Formats: sequence, structure tokens, C-alpha cells
Amino acid sequence: MQVLAKFVSFKSMEIRTAILISIGDELLIGQTIDTNSAWIAQQLNRLGIHIALKLTISDTKEAIKSALDLSMPQADLIICTGGLGPTKDDITKLTLNDYFGGTLIRNQTVHEHVVRFFEKRNRPMLAVNDMQADVPDNSTVLFNRMGTAPGMLFERPDTWVVSLPGVPKEMQVILEEELLPRIKANTIRDQHIVYKYLLLFGRGESFVAQDIADIENALPEHIHLSYLPNYGELKLRLSGSGTDYAVLNREMDTYIGLIRSRLEDYVVADEDLNLEEALIKQLKEHRLTLSTAESCTGGLISSKLTDVAGASAVYIGSIIAYHNRIKQTELNVSYEILNTVGAVSEATVLEMALSVRDRMGTDIAVAVSGILGPTGATAEKPVGLVYFGIASVKGVQAFSYNFPYDRPINKEMVAKTALNLVRKEMQRLVAEA
Amino acid sequence: MQVLAKFVSFKSMEIRTAILISIGDELLIGQTIDTNSAWIAQQLNRLGIHIALKLTISDTKEAIKSALDLSMPQADLIICTGGLGPTKDDITKLTLNDYFGGTLIRNQTVHEHVVRFFEKRNRPMLAVNDMQADVPDNSTVLFNRMGTAPGMLFERPDTWVVSLPGVPKEMQVILEEELLPRIKANTIRDQHIVYKYLLLFGRGESFVAQDIADIENALPEHIHLSYLPNYGELKLRLSGSGTDYAVLNREMDTYIGLIRSRLEDYVVADEDLNLEEALIKQLKEHRLTLSTAESCTGGLISSKLTDVAGASAVYIGSIIAYHNRIKQTELNVSYEILNTVGAVSEATVLEMALSVRDRMGTDIAVAVSGILGPTGATAEKPVGLVYFGIASVKGVQAFSYNFPYDRPINKEMVAKTALNLVRKEMQRLVAEA
Repeated sequence: MQVLAKFVSFKSMEIRTAILISIGDELLIGQTIDTNSAWIAQQLNRLGIHIALKLTISDTKEAIKSALDLSMPQADLIICTGGLGPTKDDITKLTLNDYFGGTLIRNQTVHEHVVRFFEKRNRPMLAVNDMQADVPDNSTVLFNRMGTAPGMLFERPDTWVVSLPGVPKEMQVILEEELLPRIKANTIRDQHIVYKYLLLFGRGESFVAQDIADIENALPEHIHLSYLPNYGELKLRLSGSGTDYAVLNREMDTYIGLIRSRLEDYVVADEDLNLEEALIKQLKEHRLTLSTAESCTGGLISSKLTDVAGASAVYIGSIIAYHNRIKQTELNVSYEILNTVGAVSEATVLEMALSVRDRMGTDIAVAVSGILGPTGATAEKPVGLVYFGIASVKGVQAFSYNFPYDRPINKEMVAKTALNLVRKEMQRLVAEA
Repeated sequence: MQVLAKFVSFKSMEIRTAILISIGDELLIGQTIDTNSAWIAQQLNRLGIHIALKLTISDTKEAIKSALDLSMPQADLIICTGGLGPTKDDITKLTLNDYFGGTLIRNQTVHEHVVRFFEKRNRPMLAVNDMQADVPDNSTVLFNRMGTAPGMLFERPDTWVVSLPGVPKEMQVILEEELLPRIKANTIRDQHIVYKYLLLFGRGESFVAQDIADIENALPEHIHLSYLPNYGELKLRLSGSGTDYAVLNREMDTYIGLIRSRLEDYVVADEDLNLEEALIKQLKEHRLTLSTAESCTGGLISSKLTDVAGASAVYIGSIIAYHNRIKQTELNVSYEILNTVGAVSEATVLEMALSVRDRMGTDIAVAVSGILGPTGATAEKPVGLVYFGIASVKGVQAFSYNFPYDRPINKEMVAKTALNLVRKEMQRLVAEA
């Protein structure tokens, strides 16, 4: 009853500022990249909750207590991830229980869930798994449908403190199904938050900043512009807040329109999409199909396209000709070409693009062949040299670029560049249709 | 000269504890995932430098100063990334300059580099780019070969404070070429740090923890075991420190040997490799070639294999048959099969594996077809159902698994599972050879 009473007494609490605490030595030694806190930040942003600080700490009682001492006075909401589960000795649960002076009690609902969880998987139940159902009596259980470590919510006079498992899928389900509804129910919001996006490709951040400096400088206090670069993509994110949604929305449409007119040549989309999402959407709109022939990217272009749910409506398939023999047998690149100008050449990508378009019967086909490094360079062909072939009913063209990065970044840049060449060919087909 | 004098006066300084400060609203709003700090942590770990804390903060003077106030008393080394460059208003440089009471002066070497940088790219030089060559007179420039924002090193009595750009490649080059050598030169280390690794596949973290609980509990104070799970992979990392390298190394070999003997069935490699790196290495050792035929993974298996430099020696290529028509035309899956048992079936993956192995002339071929979600499920076939086909001189086999995650995680799990099935087929070939 104590928890319920408190819950009600804070019905009108405003959650505006949050601090995220990521717990785990695997994060501090750099063996695991923290994707959780970015995802959590995105969810909270949509509710107009601002992340003031992220802390990444060791999974020790001392570090967790210090992080709480630092965060409690500054945040309406503190979300801890990690430090739960058998191999972590449930250090976060035990520390929060101490910190807030609670007592661990076995939660029957959680325990039955844990038992069923192991039964369904025909896995032996371990003693440590029973203990996962023990939760502090001064916390509210946030049910974990996807795993065995329950989430916990401690409601303090001015701050909600939440503990979630570090496993991304479990953390995400608990946050979406258990925490966000409680935050919404306890927040009376007088502010509307509006976002507008422009996805650009092929123009550097500092040049775009100069192109629109006057517009950016004229933005009012309550509207902010963010630059979000990603392998040749540049997402512009305009975020605004105001009490009248309609007025704010009109105001922001005006600014995004001004920016767009200034950068028209580079605009890919005016939604929160990445390049492959925008391309698949536009191919669907124009009823155009696509196939790919990849050498140096080894399937990354195809994999990015098929990251988009529903890609199968327009993306047909690919021939990955990593070995030169396959360029000959599957894509009709002649022995002469391979033996004279070589696999990294205009002649090769032209033939690859024509052949795969023909074989897969698509409207557009893109082919890539290049040297991503660290090895493979020759006297005439440096690391980073990549040829692109684009085939459509309009014929076939080749392009070449030099990418100055290392292997993984070159690979990403080549894939994004290929997708953008497909987008331009699509525009050409549509314009001239 | 002042900097040089100081530099010398701290010749015997020991850097043991570091704090990382990642600066940028794009990190706090979750639009960019922080990969820099994990990479930096790995580099520092190799020098036996322990990361005590990571802070992610807004790009404001106040936040940067607060982070320094918090970190200065606690760390020998503080590395700030981000908040440099035109679109960031060089906020980090200006704040550090204030914080340490310096004056900005134009650095000619840096300025000439910036000018050449723009000339080489035939890009117009902007006024803001000139200002990038202005650095605090109480800092040492850390030259940025890859970009225009210089790194800076402030040597304080007990702490080195470093500022690096947020662009990963620029940050990495400066850290490797300019910072690490200075740290090594200023550190007399009496401790040796040794790491041993075991890569496992197919056994959950908490079960492995139980399998080796007695060994883990018997580990001495100076040896620590970390569990690093990644989509079905589980990397065990044993880290130890000691004054006698030979003694420490022997001791750790004993422990890793004990753990290995307990988990033999799941061991993929005893080096710091991921599954695809280990597979490519082992295929090379056994002179076996591989091809793939992918439907639902859309090229991710092939892309992972070709992430490994030198994969071309054993990985030949792939047919990505995302559309069913391509399964017929390129992989001989019959209309009857697709129309009766369907594309997500044992019959389909058996034919896909046989066909691609035959077409590409490889020793081993793997094929996948499944439903990754969110849509595509039928009455008999739930989201997450995936069939795998493996073909070799021993014949062809099919396997099926149900993956309980969402689309992106299912895709990763399917790719890793396919790679592990190839590894097992390789072992079968080698054993029976």
C-alpha cells in the first residue's frame, strides 16, 4: 500500500530532466558498445524529457552509490541499466535496495514467470534464477516479459529511480510496456515538442552550416537545429517546443522550407529516414525494382536494403562476386578485361551492372568493385579507389571515387554512395519518363 | 618552452586511471551512438590504464566545466572527445582555454596543414577553418593528419587533460600517433597486463557461469574474468596483472586451460577474434572455400565474412535471392516447392545450398531462408522461423531454429548461427578427412 499511496501522491509530478546510468565493466573496458542509452534517450525525447547527463560506471556498490549521490539532486528521472542477473551478482538490485533502505522479498508473480520461462525453454532452473524473483519491498516491479531479471521503480519524493536489465531487448520491452505508460500517467505536459527532419547526402557538415548560417542564426530561442552526420548522410533535425501545437508546427514548417530551398540539390528526404529507408520508399512510389552486383562491399549494400522491412516489394536480389572467377562465370566479365584493366575498373563495373540487371530483370542495377584496404593497392590503384556501375533502361554509366578512410569506414561509405547513385538514376528515370 | 619544461618535469608520472568525457547533444538525444569511448578504452587498457568513469555531456561551457571539476581530482588522464570544429563553435577548445587560463594563438604548422587540406580537396577555405588553427598557448598541439581540428594536451600538475575531435577516424589517428607515444614515454610501468580469450558459441552466459563457477571462484585477486556476449557469441576475457610476466602468463594459461576443458563443445577460438574472423582463419588453415545463398539475411552473412581483411582467399561469393523468382531462376528451387511447402522450408534451403555450392564450386555452402518479422508470419510459420541448409562433399543437411527477437536482432542471430553451422561442417570435413 505504501508504494500505491506514494504513486498517487505524485500524480502531478512533471518529469522533465533525466540522467542515464549505464552499469558494467564491459562498457568501461570497451568490449561492449553502449547502444541502450541512445535508444532510451530517443524514447524519452519523444515525451519532451531532456537527458542532462549519461554516466557509465563500474558494476560495484561504491560506483553505483556515487552515481546516485551525483544524480539524485539533479534529475526528475534516473534510469540505471545493467548490473542485474546471475553473472552480475544482481549488484544494482542489492545496491538500490541498500541505498533506499528496503528489504528483499520474493515476488510470486515474478517467480512463477521465471519458472515458466525456464520450462518453456526446457532449461534446468538454477538456484540463482530463483533469487531473481526477490525484489526490494519499497520498489514497484516493472515486469520483464522477455527475460528473468525484473525491472524496478523506486519513487522518491522528487525523483523516480529505475533499474532495467542491460540486455537490449529486455530493457526495451520493459521501458515501452511498463515505464513509459507510468511516466505519461504522471506527467501533465503544457509543452508540445515538434521535430522536423531533412536527410541530405553528399555535402559536408561545415559547408551546410555555412550554406544556411543566416537561417540558423535567425532561429528563435525555442527552436534548435542539430547536425547528425553518418557516412556521407547528413540528417538535419529541427526541434522546437511551444504551448500551441498548430502555431509551433507552422513556424517550423517555414524554417524547414527555407533550409530545404537552400539545399535542394542534396535533399534525399524530409522525414526521419536513413538513405536506404528513403530509397526503398521512393522505389515503391515509382514502382521501380532494383538488383545489385557487389564485389568489395561483399553484400553490405544488399544487407542495408533488406534492413528495411518490406524491401522485398522492390529489391529483388544480388550476385556477390567476391572472387574474380565469379565475376566471369556469373556476371560475364571477360578474362580479357580482368587481365588487362583488371577487376577494379570501369569496364568491369559496366559489365557487372548490365549482367545483373539482365539476370534479375530489374529496372535499375548497381555494381561496385574497389579496393577497401588495408591491402590490395597497386602502383596505379590506391586503397580507397572504387568503381560504381549503374544500369537502367537509359543505358549504363560508370563512376569512380577515392575514399580516404580505413576498411570498415570505406565499406560503409561505398555502400551509402551506391545507394545514392541508385537514387539519382531513379530520379533521372522519373524525370524523363 | 614552458610546455616543454613541464613535459620534462613529469617524466616519471604514472598514468593509471582515466576518465572519458564525450561531448555533444547528438549523443544525449541518442541520434549518434558513442563508439569512440569504447575504442579509446581498449587502447588505454592495453597500457594498463583503467577507465574509472565515462561522462556524456551537452556541448555547453557549463557542462564541460562541471565535468572537469568532477574529473580533475580523480583521474591521471582525462580525454575529452567532440565539441570541436566549425559546427560545434569549437566549444571544447574555448572552454578548456578559459578553464586553464590560456590565450588562443594562431599555430602556423596547423594553419598550413589546414590550408593544404582544403587545397588538396579543391574545396573553398572558410573563415571558420582559419580559426581552427588557433590553439591555447598553455597546451601542446596533437597533430590531426586526417582533419582540420587539432587535438590538444594540457599538462596539469597531477593530470593530463586531452581534447580530441569527435570524428572517429580523426580521433583514432591523433590518439595513436600523438597521444599514446607521449603516455608511454611518461610512464614507468612495473606492472604487466596479460589478457587471454576464449570465444564460445551457443551456450548462454548464466549457464557458462554455472559450468565454471568453481574455477571462477578460485581465481586469485589479480586475475579477473569478464563475460562478453554478442548475438550468440560469448567471449570470455581473462585479464591479469603482475610484476613477473612469465609467471603471470603461465598462471593464466593454467586457468584458461581449465575453463576450456570444461566448455570444449562450445569453444570457437582461443584468441580475441569474433566468429567470422575465427571462421575465415580456420577455413584458410584447412584450405576450404565457402559460398552462401541468402534470402532473409539479404547479404549480412556475406558482408560479415568480407569484413575480415583477406577473406577473398576462402570466401568466393553469394547469390542473394531475396525475391522468390530469383530462388527459382538462380538457385533451381522448383515452382512446386515454393507453391507447396513454400520458400521458408527445408526443401528450399537444401536446394539453395546445393545449387550455390555447385555454381560457385566451393567446398562448403550455406543457405538461409526465414521470416525475420515484423510481418510475414503465417498460421504454420511464426516470425523468427528460419531454415538453414549446409552442403559439402558429405552431402546436404537442413536445420531450423526459432528466433524470439525483433527484425534487426533476428537478422544478426541468423547470420551468426549460419557462420557457426559452417564452422561445424568444416570440423566434420576435417575430422573425417
